[in-house]
Amino acid sequence: MSDYRAPLQEMQFILHDLIPLSDIETLPGCEEVSADLVNSVLEEAAKFSSEVLAPLNHSGDKEGSILQGDAVTTPKGFQAAYQRYIEAGWISIACNPEFGGQGLPLTLATPVNEMWHSANMAFMLCPMLTAGAIEAIDHHASDSQRAIFLEKLISGQWAGTMNLTEPSAGSDLSAVTSKAIPNEDHFLITGTKIFITYGEHDFTENIIHLVLARLPDAPAGVKGISLFIVPKFLVNAAGEIGTRNDLKCVSLEHKLGIHASPTAVMSFGENGGAVGYLVGEANRGLEYMFTMMNNARLAVGLEGVAIAERAYQQALDYATQRVQGKVPAKSGSLPILHHADVQRMLMLMTSQVQAMRALAYIAAAESDRAQRHSDPTKRQLAQARVDLLTPIVKAWSTEQAIEIASLGVQIHGGMGYIEETGAAQHWRDARITTIYEGTTGIQANDLLGRKILRDQGFEAKRLFSEIAELAEELKTSPDLQLLDMGKKLEAANQSLRNAVDWILKTHPENPSAVLAGAYPLLKCFGLVCGAWLLCKSALLLKNKNADDVFANKKIGSAVFYTHHVLSAVPGLAESICAGEAVMDAMNQGLSDVLNS
Amino acid sequence: MSDYRAPLQEMQFILHDLIPLSDIETLPGCEEVSADLVNSVLEEAAKFSSEVLAPLNHSGDKEGSILQGDAVTTPKGFQAAYQRYIEAGWISIACNPEFGGQGLPLTLATPVNEMWHSANMAFMLCPMLTAGAIEAIDHHASDSQRAIFLEKLISGQWAGTMNLTEPSAGSDLSAVTSKAIPNEDHFLITGTKIFITYGEHDFTENIIHLVLARLPDAPAGVKGISLFIVPKFLVNAAGEIGTRNDLKCVSLEHKLGIHASPTAVMSFGENGGAVGYLVGEANRGLEYMFTMMNNARLAVGLEGVAIAERAYQQALDYATQRVQGKVPAKSGSLPILHHADVQRMLMLMTSQVQAMRALAYIAAAESDRAQRHSDPTKRQLAQARVDLLTPIVKAWSTEQAIEIASLGVQIHGGMGYIEETGAAQHWRDARITTIYEGTTGIQANDLLGRKILRDQGFEAKRLFSEIAELAEELKTSPDLQLLDMGKKLEAANQSLRNAVDWILKTHPENPSAVLAGAYPLLKCFGLVCGAWLLCKSALLLKNKNADDVFANKKIGSAVFYTHHVLSAVPGLAESICAGEAVMDAMNQGLSDVLNS
Repeated sequence: MSDYRAPLQEMQFILHDLIPLSDIETLPGCEEVSADLVNSVLEEAAKFSSEVLAPLNHSGDKEGSILQGDAVTTPKGFQAAYQRYIEAGWISIACNPEFGGQGLPLTLATPVNEMWHSANMAFMLCPMLTAGAIEAIDHHASDSQRAIFLEKLISGQWAGTMNLTEPSAGSDLSAVTSKAIPNEDHFLITGTKIFITYGEHDFTENIIHLVLARLPDAPAGVKGISLFIVPKFLVNAAGEIGTRNDLKCVSLEHKLGIHASPTAVMSFGENGGAVGYLVGEANRGLEYMFTMMNNARLAVGLEGVAIAERAYQQALDYATQRVQGKVPAKSGSLPILHHADVQRMLMLMTSQVQAMRALAYIAAAESDRAQRHSDPTKRQLAQARVDLLTPIVKAWSTEQAIEIASLGVQIHGGMGYIEETGAAQHWRDARITTIYEGTTGIQANDLLGRKILRDQGFEAKRLFSEIAELAEELKTSPDLQLLDMGKKLEAANQSLRNAVDWILKTHPENPSAVLAGAYPLLKCFGLVCGAWLLCKSALLLKNKNADDVFANKKIGSAVFYTHHVLSAVPGLAESICAGEAVMDAMNQGLSDVLNS
Repeated sequence: MSDYRAPLQEMQFILHDLIPLSDIETLPGCEEVSADLVNSVLEEAAKFSSEVLAPLNHSGDKEGSILQGDAVTTPKGFQAAYQRYIEAGWISIACNPEFGGQGLPLTLATPVNEMWHSANMAFMLCPMLTAGAIEAIDHHASDSQRAIFLEKLISGQWAGTMNLTEPSAGSDLSAVTSKAIPNEDHFLITGTKIFITYGEHDFTENIIHLVLARLPDAPAGVKGISLFIVPKFLVNAAGEIGTRNDLKCVSLEHKLGIHASPTAVMSFGENGGAVGYLVGEANRGLEYMFTMMNNARLAVGLEGVAIAERAYQQALDYATQRVQGKVPAKSGSLPILHHADVQRMLMLMTSQVQAMRALAYIAAAESDRAQRHSDPTKRQLAQARVDLLTPIVKAWSTEQAIEIASLGVQIHGGMGYIEETGAAQHWRDARITTIYEGTTGIQANDLLGRKILRDQGFEAKRLFSEIAELAEELKTSPDLQLLDMGKKLEAANQSLRNAVDWILKTHPENPSAVLAGAYPLLKCFGLVCGAWLLCKSALLLKNKNADDVFANKKIGSAVFYTHHVLSAVPGLAESICAGEAVMDAMNQGLSDVLNS
């Protein structure tokens, strides 16, 4: 078990100095955002997360959610915490004001969401899925549907879910087979959905399921899938709850982690068909899902940041308390923090968390600009940037989160392997984040195909130029730490740029040669983007002549990162450009199974 | 749940072609070793591991071992499997023939042990700990103690344990506080020991605990710890079991993995003192433990190989069966094996497992030479080599095993997160291997301090020369794959050599500057040694003109490894040589906690 203390100073620094928030405040609809508002929102969220949610994280893991009949009981304290959470209005902060939301920008919602996930990721998945349902209904449903469902979802009185996956339709949703038969003013839905997060629970009086299914005459594949609202209890036009719909949770998965979060197998229409209401137009369900995908993927990337931060805090606490062994050149018994290799692990953890956090927040700010900027050209550029960054935030942050949580276990030594310590829970919880909302492989292919090849590297090169500009500025600094950072950033940026050039040149003549490089490419982008923002932070602090604890931590982290993390870039770039030799080697190495 | 098929062809190749076993057969005491013997031992072990042990792996994880009163019940089927295991004589294969052992070399015991750990690591920890107890007693106990205990341990009728760790004495055993008071012909032991693997169980009628404790007049620190035999049931001179000794298991840990293996908190002497017998001389207990350490660490490194192999087999099976999504440039529905990124993950898994296995087996062969060679110079060189390789086999293989098992989870997608699938168990089980028998940090410091600095890099350079020689041979090959491998091996070997030179030059003037590089150094050694043996294997197969499935798999793996794994070396070498800048950055980044 471990405490959680929200890293408020770091969050404020990214918001005000790195983004900066003064830019976001000028966007239409963000006029209310001020330093005072930001302060009070962050401080309240910090308090709630550490006092209410964090203490339930370990007990929730141990107890898990339990299915009896078709009802799910969440762990002790979760239901009460949810009540307090919605009473405080947390669900609504980024939602549409027309239906009771507070309409705050994603830039501000992002640090708040980070806190929730650090404190209790398994709890937070319910509000997170509800946010997805709210977004889908707000953007694509009819006015009458919005009138019926949005207010109660935004208040948190009802919860929402996403019913996409089926046993044979996971990464490939075009294979969905659930059926929707027209019946009067609605549809009758039948089918089995799996991996439904909070598909059933005891937080709310009603659960609004969003379900992908096919109409009888729908074309095969991706263009024949429609989206339906399928409430657990039917709701009349006045929003009053009526009879139970024909759907139920038939089992919960026994998972590696996020035990408190019930992952349901949902059965629709065992008794004739569940009543469902079509959202938007028929056969456009997948398209509607895709419009929400950036935000959902950024949210999962943020989960990586959050779990990694929690793991770091716990490891740091342990390292400062656990006395063991002698430290070279120092006398007496000291905490293990004084061993160089423990310091190396702690610095790997914190420097990467800082890098991941900065990138996630920057992407959120770009998303706000893309949504809200008054200048269409700026909206378009911001959208291109958020499109490029999304798979990086999603996959790089989550892959690193697993490694960071693993370092947390390692710092605990034997105690890390004992579940009571809680270090292992972070590692188990983090393990889902590279899988759901599109696996790392899918993100890597998205980056390579849709984000680099499709625009011929335009947006990537725009990013490289910005990074090169920063590197140039650092290199001319009289400060030796900044100068060295600048050299390292420039070299890594150039390595990555060369790899992208190689991809752009090679792909037209030999498309398959670039495929095995997709993941190393994504990792390189993560490393370089992380260095970009850490170095920029160090520069901002040095320019301020800041010499406090916070500035030293940030600058030390940036230096460490450029030496021990960013140094992987040229090797990865070499792997990317190995191209066809690697495709051949894979065909050779897997020849027996490929040909069987 | 997954099957396990021992990779016999690969094992035979390493034994006969890479080591080669013909060398080992000429060592004194190994005259009985022949290709026929090797075949029959490996085939029997393969059968036993896949038919008896592997099917209990998943159920054992689910059930776990349970403590009631002070008795431990192992999972269903484990007791019966243990009976069959000892009846087949498996405990004894590498043991002293004087007491019923078969005296086979470690080179042959190693693939056999790999199979047991692949099949069921949690089961295998009991025989593994017994092997440690046998070794300690055989090397350090008196003749009468050996006569009483060895035969029954070697037959498996009794089991053995190692009682080293205490709550405040983990990595630093000098802090042991358990007490031993002289009393007639024995000692009375009191104290609490934690993390005692198979400290209590239902496999055998007696358990022989080896316990570290201090005599009343012992000097403080490492030179005041003695080793005792403390049987669960007292044994008379004829080896007959008598009264219960004053020791018991007071609780079992709730662990992240290896659930079937009971990890006990042992309490000695709650009723006056447990009867213990001093092993060897007083105050030399830690020294005796250290003589066993190489073998124990190689054994844990082998666990890494074993779990990684099992995870690979399961992932490969899933990838060949699971149909999902479209594959670029291919029509119809294909298994996910046909996606380039899945191939990349599978090749990362298999190529690294092959590299880790080859290195573990080579180290075992060097250990046999060091023990048995008739020429003392050759014994000494072999010992230096096994000393150098031990921390690498231990830490590199286990660190990579966790990553490989994680790739196994990833290939399973959402199913990987569901415990019934079994992929997650390998990942959880593997997680202990970087912690016990000396954490990765301890191995890295051992490599840096005792294996590189102490002999001024002599043995490391002897290894670099051998690798350079192979690279030279490859570079002159007309075969383009070999030629390219040679260039890459040469460059990586040179990077590592430069880093070692930098360490040797820097350490005398600035000892702390080299410390943060210990882990990157260890990883570099692993990567280069792995490439050395994969490339050597490819050369051997190409020289044989082998063009079968096996040869193609090996050659494809070597090519892939040099492009996607070995490419990390220059970046790591850069991290090592960052030296003081990194120490400063760590002090800066952790300044608040270091100074508090």
